[in-house]
Amino acid sequence: MSEKATSPMFARVALIGIGLINSSLARVLRRDGLAGHIAICARTRATLDKAMALGLADSATIDPGVAVQDADLVVIGTPLGAYADVAQNMASNLKAGCIVTDVGSVKEAVIRTVAPHLPQGVHLVPAHPVAGTEHSGPEAGFAELFENRWCIITPPAGTDPAAVERVVELWRHAGMKIQMMEAERHDKVLAITSHVPHLIAYTIVGTATDLEGDLRDEVIKFSAGGFRDFTRIAASDPTMWRDIFLTNKEAVLEMLGRFSEDLIALRRAIRRDEGQTLYDVFSRTRQIRRGVIDAQQHIPPKSPKNNAG
Amino acid sequence: MSEKATSPMFARVALIGIGLINSSLARVLRRDGLAGHIAICARTRATLDKAMALGLADSATIDPGVAVQDADLVVIGTPLGAYADVAQNMASNLKAGCIVTDVGSVKEAVIRTVAPHLPQGVHLVPAHPVAGTEHSGPEAGFAELFENRWCIITPPAGTDPAAVERVVELWRHAGMKIQMMEAERHDKVLAITSHVPHLIAYTIVGTATDLEGDLRDEVIKFSAGGFRDFTRIAASDPTMWRDIFLTNKEAVLEMLGRFSEDLIALRRAIRRDEGQTLYDVFSRTRQIRRGVIDAQQHIPPKSPKNNAG
Repeated sequence: MSEKATSPMFARVALIGIGLINSSLARVLRRDGLAGHIAICARTRATLDKAMALGLADSATIDPGVAVQDADLVVIGTPLGAYADVAQNMASNLKAGCIVTDVGSVKEAVIRTVAPHLPQGVHLVPAHPVAGTEHSGPEAGFAELFENRWCIITPPAGTDPAAVERVVELWRHAGMKIQMMEAERHDKVLAITSHVPHLIAYTIVGTATDLEGDLRDEVIKFSAGGFRDFTRIAASDPTMWRDIFLTNKEAVLEMLGRFSEDLIALRRAIRRDEGQTLYDVFSRTRQIRRGVIDAQQHIPPKSPKNNAG
Repeated sequence: MSEKATSPMFARVALIGIGLINSSLARVLRRDGLAGHIAICARTRATLDKAMALGLADSATIDPGVAVQDADLVVIGTPLGAYADVAQNMASNLKAGCIVTDVGSVKEAVIRTVAPHLPQGVHLVPAHPVAGTEHSGPEAGFAELFENRWCIITPPAGTDPAAVERVVELWRHAGMKIQMMEAERHDKVLAITSHVPHLIAYTIVGTATDLEGDLRDEVIKFSAGGFRDFTRIAASDPTMWRDIFLTNKEAVLEMLGRFSEDLIALRRAIRRDEGQTLYDVFSRTRQIRRGVIDAQQHIPPKSPKNNAG
């Protein structure tokens, strides 16, 4: 993973957004010498200054059009709601042969939003490295974030295979396993594995917050055991998650509908004292946990060396 | 924590049930020399043999009446659904002055189910050590399970204060912080911090399980990130949880009702593209996480030395 390339994989890389994911990617690029020049772009100078102070890049600008000048690879790492503006602002400065990729948690919306702006000869290869912590910002990133996790790549039909292969190679350097997938399929899978679980965590933490004063204090005090895990998930970045739900609306609403039906069925079983029904549901789910452990997905993210996590 | 008492705190202790919690308590009793004699009771000889082989007790029987003979302290650690039978079977053999306590996750039902059977002069001090992992059985227990966690003690009005104090002392030895609480209050708090979160985890894992074959396999494969945490929670003991929902029915249904209303409100916001609503909810919950971290409840349970956890 740490082999230095003789000449860098990409002469010039532009990272649009320098939050948890892109700053972790920057650390991988630095560690493995994968980029000749790293240009970063963020909405505020303060963020850029922080990132530069961390040694993450060679140049910084708040203008996406400037950042992508001469770039061989552009990685969009902003909240999904910003993609349209980013695409509009950078499109005319993209050189032919440039690969535009991203790290967003929803894929169909990326294709819908970005593709129309891209000039001929520029390759769009949407990707989703399925990794993260609940922390935010350039200081939160670390190179090992991606190790042994999956990266799902969803190129639209007809995308240049050589461009796809370079994105694959990039994420392999970061230690990821690669899965090619249709964008629509990705969005369905992520709706159930990530988006709806997050929404549920946000909801229950909110429900607990709305209890009367003393009860709420006791809830926080005795939060070990179930609730603690939910509070961690519900501490995730509000902007990122707002945009995920707005851009993956159909799949999320479908999975939410199924979940709600199943929850009401269990509620009914409780009300009607149907112990056997409850027992059967709870036993079946134990098996799924075994499946997750077998698929090695039960190991939580590594702690960053510089971050208490 | 490891001081050996000159004469043991309890001459004779009976542990009814020898699962995760009671076997962890047994290890504490052994470590600190808190019991002259430990008698264990379980439903099957196989479980008793396993526990004896682990050195957890001095005598073993499948008959609660035999186990509690001459006991100064009886700790009920069976699933809540078994309490009535246990109480009936042991009641006539309880000596005067004996303290009967438990470790169950619901408290009002304990008082309702057990108290009527107890003879005069026997003290009922229900307790709930809020600690655990998703594993089961005498081999899963470890002495450090309780360290720095809360133990909620819910004696009915009029309980002998000296008896309560002994139970307090017991759990302090295990490293717990002690909270006295009304049983009904306990059940409400636990409904929101533990019972409803578990039900939700069970539900979403079940919803994912019901998806069509390929989609389900992909869900397991890409389960890091939200879903993974839910599968761990949903691997908890089905018997224990069935009984929790059946015995804490009112509080669970109330909290479930609130949760469902809040979820539907968020669903509506998504359907109506109400980004600001989503953002506001998600920002507010970040604050709760900060509260949990301040209350030191974000630290997951220690790994047992002998258990991969």
